[in-house]
Amino acid sequence: MSTSEDHPVNVTEDKSKPSAFANLDSLTTSLLHDARLQYTPPLPPALQNMGCLSTKETDEKFEELDPGLSFSLKRLFPQTHGQKILDFYQDNTATAAQPLILGVVLSGGQAPGGHNVIAGLFDALKAIHPKSELIGFKDGPGGLVNNKYIRLHKGLIDRYRNTGGFDMIGSGRTKISTLKQFQATASSLEYLNMDGLVIIGGDDSNTNAALIAEYLKQNNMKCKCVGVPKTIDGDLSNEFIEISFGYDSCCKVYSNEISNLARDARSAGKYWFFLKMMGRSASHITLECALQTRPNVALISEEILKEKKTLQDITVEIADTVCKRSRLGKDYGVVLIPEGLIEFIPEFQILIQDLNRTLATKLTQTVLAALKKDELKVDYVESTLSGASQECYAGLPIEIQIQLILDRDPHGNVAVSQIETERLVGEMVAKELEKRKKADIYKQNFDPRFHFCGYQGRSVFPSNFDAKYCYALGFVAAGLLKNGHTGYISCVRNLAKPVSEWKPCGLPLTGLMNIEERHGQPKPVIKKALVELEGTKFTLFKEQRKHWAIQDAYIFTGPVQFFGPESITDDTNFHVKAFL
Amino acid sequence: MSTSEDHPVNVTEDKSKPSAFANLDSLTTSLLHDARLQYTPPLPPALQNMGCLSTKETDEKFEELDPGLSFSLKRLFPQTHGQKILDFYQDNTATAAQPLILGVVLSGGQAPGGHNVIAGLFDALKAIHPKSELIGFKDGPGGLVNNKYIRLHKGLIDRYRNTGGFDMIGSGRTKISTLKQFQATASSLEYLNMDGLVIIGGDDSNTNAALIAEYLKQNNMKCKCVGVPKTIDGDLSNEFIEISFGYDSCCKVYSNEISNLARDARSAGKYWFFLKMMGRSASHITLECALQTRPNVALISEEILKEKKTLQDITVEIADTVCKRSRLGKDYGVVLIPEGLIEFIPEFQILIQDLNRTLATKLTQTVLAALKKDELKVDYVESTLSGASQECYAGLPIEIQIQLILDRDPHGNVAVSQIETERLVGEMVAKELEKRKKADIYKQNFDPRFHFCGYQGRSVFPSNFDAKYCYALGFVAAGLLKNGHTGYISCVRNLAKPVSEWKPCGLPLTGLMNIEERHGQPKPVIKKALVELEGTKFTLFKEQRKHWAIQDAYIFTGPVQFFGPESITDDTNFHVKAFL
Repeated sequence: MSTSEDHPVNVTEDKSKPSAFANLDSLTTSLLHDARLQYTPPLPPALQNMGCLSTKETDEKFEELDPGLSFSLKRLFPQTHGQKILDFYQDNTATAAQPLILGVVLSGGQAPGGHNVIAGLFDALKAIHPKSELIGFKDGPGGLVNNKYIRLHKGLIDRYRNTGGFDMIGSGRTKISTLKQFQATASSLEYLNMDGLVIIGGDDSNTNAALIAEYLKQNNMKCKCVGVPKTIDGDLSNEFIEISFGYDSCCKVYSNEISNLARDARSAGKYWFFLKMMGRSASHITLECALQTRPNVALISEEILKEKKTLQDITVEIADTVCKRSRLGKDYGVVLIPEGLIEFIPEFQILIQDLNRTLATKLTQTVLAALKKDELKVDYVESTLSGASQECYAGLPIEIQIQLILDRDPHGNVAVSQIETERLVGEMVAKELEKRKKADIYKQNFDPRFHFCGYQGRSVFPSNFDAKYCYALGFVAAGLLKNGHTGYISCVRNLAKPVSEWKPCGLPLTGLMNIEERHGQPKPVIKKALVELEGTKFTLFKEQRKHWAIQDAYIFTGPVQFFGPESITDDTNFHVKAFL
Repeated sequence: MSTSEDHPVNVTEDKSKPSAFANLDSLTTSLLHDARLQYTPPLPPALQNMGCLSTKETDEKFEELDPGLSFSLKRLFPQTHGQKILDFYQDNTATAAQPLILGVVLSGGQAPGGHNVIAGLFDALKAIHPKSELIGFKDGPGGLVNNKYIRLHKGLIDRYRNTGGFDMIGSGRTKISTLKQFQATASSLEYLNMDGLVIIGGDDSNTNAALIAEYLKQNNMKCKCVGVPKTIDGDLSNEFIEISFGYDSCCKVYSNEISNLARDARSAGKYWFFLKMMGRSASHITLECALQTRPNVALISEEILKEKKTLQDITVEIADTVCKRSRLGKDYGVVLIPEGLIEFIPEFQILIQDLNRTLATKLTQTVLAALKKDELKVDYVESTLSGASQECYAGLPIEIQIQLILDRDPHGNVAVSQIETERLVGEMVAKELEKRKKADIYKQNFDPRFHFCGYQGRSVFPSNFDAKYCYALGFVAAGLLKNGHTGYISCVRNLAKPVSEWKPCGLPLTGLMNIEERHGQPKPVIKKALVELEGTKFTLFKEQRKHWAIQDAYIFTGPVQFFGPESITDDTNFHVKAFL
C-alpha cells in the first residue's frame, strides 16, 4: 500500500503500468461477467440531459446540531461553509457546455459499485462534451499526492461496468493532512489542468474532500472538489443520504450466507453457527441482515452499550436461548455478532486502554521480544495488568489473548477489528453451557462453528440497486462540477421508489460535519451514524426477535440475481424501505 | 443427532412432530425462494413415461479390479453380487403398474439437491400410480432403525422443490452395522409394507444400502433397496457415475467466494487470502474451483502425497510465489488449501498417530484434566512426544497445537477436519517470510487473511444442473424399484449434454465395491475417488498454474443465477466437461 506522508510531488503519468487493465487483458471473463458488462443502468429523468443540467439552491436545511457548531465550522471552512443544498433542473436556455477535465480517486475499503460511479462520471462527462476527460488517480489519495494517474478511456471503462472491486484504478487509505500533502495535491490538479476532483469514500475521505475543496478555494484554484458516499458499513447516512453505496450488495451477500448456514444448521440439527459481521463500529449490517434472514440471535452493539451489558450478560443470554431451543429438540441455531462488538462492552473498553498502555512501554516490548512462546507472552502481559482488566483478560480464550497482544494496528494499538469476536462469544457460551451441564440443566452436546461475513462481500458484482445508484451518483458528481460547485457531496434521494422517481441533489459537505477535539485542536469529522435504538428498523427487530430466538423463522434469501423478475433483481432492502 | 446403536424397534409414526414443514409454516419465504418452488426441472425422454418404464440388462462392465475381488464379494453378497448394469426403455406392452410404497432416507452431510431427489421420487411414484406412497424416515438411517417417519404428501413436497438443505426430513450419520440394527430396519420396512427403500448418501451410505439390500433378499423380504450418489466432495464417482450430486452447486458457490476475494485482494493490494476448501480427503473441490477461478496457488493433496512433500516444502513454495509477486508490485494473492491436506503430509500422518496414542492414555487424560491452562496442556503433550513428532508439534502455531489436542472426534481421535489448515499454512508462510525479511530478500509487509469455504455452501439452493440431475436421479431410483431391482445405485450419464440426451441407468452397488480388512474381518467399501494426477483436469491445471501464480489471471464467476440465458443458468462445470 502506498503511504505518502510528506512525499515530494512527483509529477508523472504512470506509463510503465498504463492501467490495471493491462493485467486484465489476459483475463478470460466468465459468461456472467460478460453479461454484466452489457447491463445499462437506467438514469433518473433529471440526469438524462447533461447538457442542460443546472442547479438551484433550496431552502432545505440539515437538522440544527450544536448552535456553536456553525461558528466553529465557519472558522475551519471560511470559503465553503454556509452553502445551500442544491436541486437539479433542466435549463433549456443554457449555453453550450465546455469540455471538462475531471479526476477521480477511490479511497478506503472496497464497496460494490465503485466502478459504476466512475463509469457514470465518464458517461456524464462525455454527454456534457465529447472532448471532456476523466483521469483516475492510482491507489487512493496517495496517487493524488504523488501524481500517479491514468487517463480513462472508453475501452477501459467498458471492461469495468457493473463489476465489483476497486481494481480499475486501485484504492488506498492515505489521509491528506499535512500542508505538504495539500500542496502536492494542488500541484497534481494544476499540472493536469483539472476542473474538478471527485473523491469516492467514507466519512474520513469525505472530510478530506471538504478540506481539499476549502484549500483549493482559499488558494484561488480553478479546480473544485466533491465527494461520493461510499461504505458497506452503512454508517455514512443522514436525513438526506438515505444509504451509502455498497451496503445493499453486501447485506444481500451476507444474508445469503446467513440463510445458507441457517438451513444447514436446521438440516444437520447439531451446529450453532457464530457469525462475525463486517461493518466496523456500527451494527447496521448486522441489523439489516437480521431483518432479512431472522437468525436466532443478533447482537446490536449500540443496544449493548446503552444497557451497559458485560460479556457475561451476553454469554448468559445466548446460553439461555441455546437451552430453551434444546428443550424443544432444536440443538442448533445462528448467532450474528457485529465486528465492532467489543468496543461497546465497557469492561473491554477499559481492558483495551490498559493493554494499549502496557504494550506501549519499552519494558513490555523488550520482554515480549525476548519471550519465544506466545503463551509466555500472554502470561507476562496478564501480570502487567491489574484489577478488573486482569480478570477480564485472564478469562478469555487463549487465541483471543494472543490476538489482543500480537495483532496491532499501524499505531501499535490493539487491532480490534482483527479479534475473532465470533470465537470469543462462542467459546464463552460453550464454557457457560459446560457449567450448566455439570448442574444437569443442559444435557446436549454444544457444537459451535464460526464464520466471518467479511472480505468475500466487499468486492462482489454490485446488485442492480447499487449498479444503478452508483451510476447516478457519478452523474450527480459530474453535474455538480459542471455547475462550478465545490465542497459538496453527491446525493440521490427517494431510493425506495423506481429510478424514474429518484431525486438527485447536492449536499454541502460541511452540513455533515461535527467538530471534535483531537490533541487540543478542533478537528472536523463526519459523525458516524450508529443504529438508532428508537428507529423503525431496530423497533421492528426488537418486536420480533423473541419469536425468532425460539422458532425457526429463517428466511432463505438466495444469491443475488441479475436476470429475471425485477421484484427479485432490483429489490432494495429494508434499510431504504424504512425511509418510506 | 440421533444415535441408535442397538436401539429397540419402536414402531411409531411420529405424529407429535408430523413434519419439519410444521416449522416452516410460519416462515415467510423470500421472493427468490418462491420463484425456485415454481421451477420445473425437465426430464430425459426415457423417464417421461413412468408407466411403461422398463429395464434391460446390458453387457457393459466395470473395470476389472483385483481378480480375487469378485470371489470375496460373492461371499459377502451371495444374493446381490453379479447383477448386470441396467438400461431403461419404454415397454408399450407393459401391463398397468400397481401402486408402490417407497421409503426414503437422507444420510450424512447436506448436499444441494437432496430435496429434488425426493421430489423426483414422489412425482415418479405418482406417475406410476396415483395411489403410490412415499414415506420419509426422519433424521437419517437412525429413523429407519427407530421407525420414525413421516408420510410425504404433495403439499409438503411442493414446499421443498429446488431448495437447499436436508430439512424436509432431516439427515443423520447412524451407520447400520449390528444385526439388531438390520433386524430393526427390516421390521420398520415390513411394518410399513414397503416395496422399496431409497438411501441418498455418500460412499459409506451406499455401502450400507448394498448391505441392507443383501439382508432383505437373504430374508426373503418383499422390500428392495437402492442408493443415490450424493456428496459435495465429488469423491463418489467412477467410469459410470460422472459426478455425485451437490458438487456442481458447491463448486459454483465456492468459486464465487474465491473470485470475490481475488478481486478484493487485487483492489486493496495488500492481503494474501488463505482459503480452506471443504471436501474431506480428496481435492476435487479445490481442483475444480481452481480451474473455475485461477488462484495464485492451489494445493492438491494427492500430488503432495505422491511427491512426499513436507510442510516446509509447501511453505517455501508459497513463500517463493509471494516473493516473486512482490517483486512485480503485487503484494496480494489467493491460496486454496484442501481441508484434508494434513492427512497427506507424511510427517503429520505420524504426528497424528503419535498424538492419538498419547491422548488415549489414562495418564495423559488425567494430567490434561488437571491442567487449567491450554498452554500448559500443550507443553505437557509436547513432552510426551518424541523425535520427529515432537519437533513437528513444537513448530506449529499455538492455535493449531491446541486444536490438535482439544478438538477430538467421537472416538477420541484428533479431529483432522477441525484443524484450521488455512491458518497453519498461512502462519508458516508468515514465519518463512519473516526470515527472508531479516535476510533482506523480502521487503514487504505480509498480511495473511483466512477464510473457510465450508458449511455456507452445503445447503444452498441447488444450481439448475443439480436441480435437474437430482430430479432425474429420483425418477431413476423409482424406475429401478418399480422393476423390482435391489442392490443398485441410481445413475444418469452423458451429463455434459442437454437433458434430452441424458442416459439413465442402474449400476449394481457391488460393482463399486472393494474389500478392506478391518479388525481382521473383510469389509466391503466403496473406494473414494481421489484426484487422478494423470487425468484431464489435473493436467490442465498443471499446465497453467505457473502462469496463474504470477499473473492476475483470476476469473470472476459471480453468484449462481436462476433466470436468464441458459448458458449461464444451466452451465455445468469443468468436471463434467472433462468427460466429454
